[in-house]
Amino acid sequence: MMMNNLNDLTFSERAARMSRSAVREFVKLTTRPGLISFAGGLPAPELFPVQEMENAATRVFSRIGAGSLQYGETEGLPELRDWLARAFSTASFEVRREHVLITNGAQQALHLLGLVLLDEQDTVLAENPTYLALLSAWRTLGAQFRAVPCDAQGICVEQLESSRARHDCHPKLLYVQPNFQNPQGTTLPAHRRPRLIEWARARKLFLIEDNAYGELRYEGEALPHLLQLAGSTTAASPDHAGVAHVGTFSKVIAPGLRIGWVIGPANLIDKLTQAKQAADLHTSTLNQYLVLDLLQDGLLERHLPVLRSAYRTRRNTMLSALARHFPKDLPTHPQGGLFVMLSFADQRNTRNLLPHALARGVAFVPGDEFYLDGTGHNTMRLNFSNASPEKIEEGLAKLEAAARAP
Amino acid sequence: MMMNNLNDLTFSERAARMSRSAVREFVKLTTRPGLISFAGGLPAPELFPVQEMENAATRVFSRIGAGSLQYGETEGLPELRDWLARAFSTASFEVRREHVLITNGAQQALHLLGLVLLDEQDTVLAENPTYLALLSAWRTLGAQFRAVPCDAQGICVEQLESSRARHDCHPKLLYVQPNFQNPQGTTLPAHRRPRLIEWARARKLFLIEDNAYGELRYEGEALPHLLQLAGSTTAASPDHAGVAHVGTFSKVIAPGLRIGWVIGPANLIDKLTQAKQAADLHTSTLNQYLVLDLLQDGLLERHLPVLRSAYRTRRNTMLSALARHFPKDLPTHPQGGLFVMLSFADQRNTRNLLPHALARGVAFVPGDEFYLDGTGHNTMRLNFSNASPEKIEEGLAKLEAAARAP
Repeated sequence: MMMNNLNDLTFSERAARMSRSAVREFVKLTTRPGLISFAGGLPAPELFPVQEMENAATRVFSRIGAGSLQYGETEGLPELRDWLARAFSTASFEVRREHVLITNGAQQALHLLGLVLLDEQDTVLAENPTYLALLSAWRTLGAQFRAVPCDAQGICVEQLESSRARHDCHPKLLYVQPNFQNPQGTTLPAHRRPRLIEWARARKLFLIEDNAYGELRYEGEALPHLLQLAGSTTAASPDHAGVAHVGTFSKVIAPGLRIGWVIGPANLIDKLTQAKQAADLHTSTLNQYLVLDLLQDGLLERHLPVLRSAYRTRRNTMLSALARHFPKDLPTHPQGGLFVMLSFADQRNTRNLLPHALARGVAFVPGDEFYLDGTGHNTMRLNFSNASPEKIEEGLAKLEAAARAP
Repeated sequence: MMMNNLNDLTFSERAARMSRSAVREFVKLTTRPGLISFAGGLPAPELFPVQEMENAATRVFSRIGAGSLQYGETEGLPELRDWLARAFSTASFEVRREHVLITNGAQQALHLLGLVLLDEQDTVLAENPTYLALLSAWRTLGAQFRAVPCDAQGICVEQLESSRARHDCHPKLLYVQPNFQNPQGTTLPAHRRPRLIEWARARKLFLIEDNAYGELRYEGEALPHLLQLAGSTTAASPDHAGVAHVGTFSKVIAPGLRIGWVIGPANLIDKLTQAKQAADLHTSTLNQYLVLDLLQDGLLERHLPVLRSAYRTRRNTMLSALARHFPKDLPTHPQGGLFVMLSFADQRNTRNLLPHALARGVAFVPGDEFYLDGTGHNTMRLNFSNASPEKIEEGLAKLEAAARAP
């Protein structure tokens, strides 16, 4: 009697390309009590501004009331778009409301960009290694990724042309995380940024700048965004910059609210809005009001120094523990963000190390997941934001013991 | 110097099919003060449980704290999935957590279903007229819609086979809103439901049951969901029912939270989860906890009678005012939901009426937007949930005056 068993139902071709993120599924398994996990990318929950959020909720229900629970505009709350427009404007670069779309976290921004920009077989140049959830989002749409080599300072701009030529491709997009890249933690230095923009511009290649971690800087000075650099050399707004800038409040306020954004040319924002209307109508009205209230209340001025200080300590703890426990191996030196990448000098495959590490109560993500060209077997990604300094010390001692095991 | 002007950037073929929803854009214009709008589909904000929501927020921040602000599972909050599984289980039909995915409102559920089920040129059978935002979501993916005739009791089951044959198609999906359909407000009666399921099953056609309004019933008894009917005739769970059931808390708690769901076969839920992971990682943790808290606190038992009573009054007001002001024309008789559809006996085109109505301070949506076959020019959709009974009386008097204008 099971005539319409779903086994008869074929999924779409698109769906056949989908799979669960190995990292996300693996990270789910690393939440068992007692396990020290460097595997995920979670902010430290003990630093979340819970009391501030509760105060914000009280204010929003009192000031906005029912309006905070009603349907909203697909583009996002106008006042929140205006706040972002002001935050990204400079003396020579004007961002207006029409250049901003509010999304359900940065991940939705990336997915919508893929939906409106990428056709089957389109080519995307990206840092190698790169952000895993981007690959799953855009590969599902039929995009092909091509690797651009990276060094300790991020994408090697001088190798962009040879990468393109070697792959014999006419890429449509160049995806880059200039600040504290996931997974490497690298930062594109000031002198590489204009060169990257010029190379892309000469080839009419549109840039996607993913800046999920940019506010979490622990040393050095903030560098200008590609959006602003590209904009100020051509026109005084995002309209002709050739860049879409993706950001999020997940790392600086709280990820559970799912509030991110895209800033880009108004005609791109318009098309992204159409895509979002079909995808989910709009982003949570309540959560947008909560974020807006906290921003207007000056939360970031109070909270960012707290986050930077705590995460700086954790980064320093991890780097010094890595130097002690793995003196022969090469960690990246992140100026900010949430991740260090460790490369083993002896070229061991970190997948083989993982069961030993888990047996000793510590988890990491094998780095090859993030590579576009099948390399990276000797690397691992280590998150330093979620564990306390004491747990970081303890976890790296366990990791060393695991690495020594036969 | 504008070498990388976005004018050079081509959008995807997919994007070329996207457009702004004419209704949504139009509804934006009808928010000017003083205008009485029957155009949107907004619940009444004065009925939102704002105080209950504030209490829930206090409890969630106190009980769950930082956990309510952290990243969450793509599938949704396990306790919320369990609540829905229990709510949809019957003595002979068992829904389990694995059959439930939490989404950003019902719209995301529909979009994800399209992503994982529909290939370019796949055919979907749907009620004529049907839900506009479904069309924009699935047409963008390349789906073709074919109309099934409807009468005052919803989809004409006996015409399904001739519709299919006339279009000479092998449809992949049948989309149906059995309760208080948008835009017509019709309800599929008990005797048609098993016949609809049998027809679909014999043709291996998967059913999408959209039940956005099902809890808002103002007369008569609740009818079994297609999901449950289909499940109980084949197997004791959604796994072999051949139905995906889409629902939302938007109409019974608040739309601004964006919490909806899909219940369906576990292998479909698994694939939808992969699609959602790429689309936006997960639904707002805070909003899921708020809804869960309100459900556990018994909000629906207190709040649904209030909503039903208020909306029943508004529906009755609208139906009696329509009978007075438009005695020759034919309104549908919704047993629930938010909409009445009015058909003009004189076959006038309601688009021509719209400017006159707006000039007199009243708005509606011309009905042809919702039709799949180019008909419906003599119809209009009227929302009765958003305006007070007094405003409904006043608005329909204005509408009559507009309709009388030369």
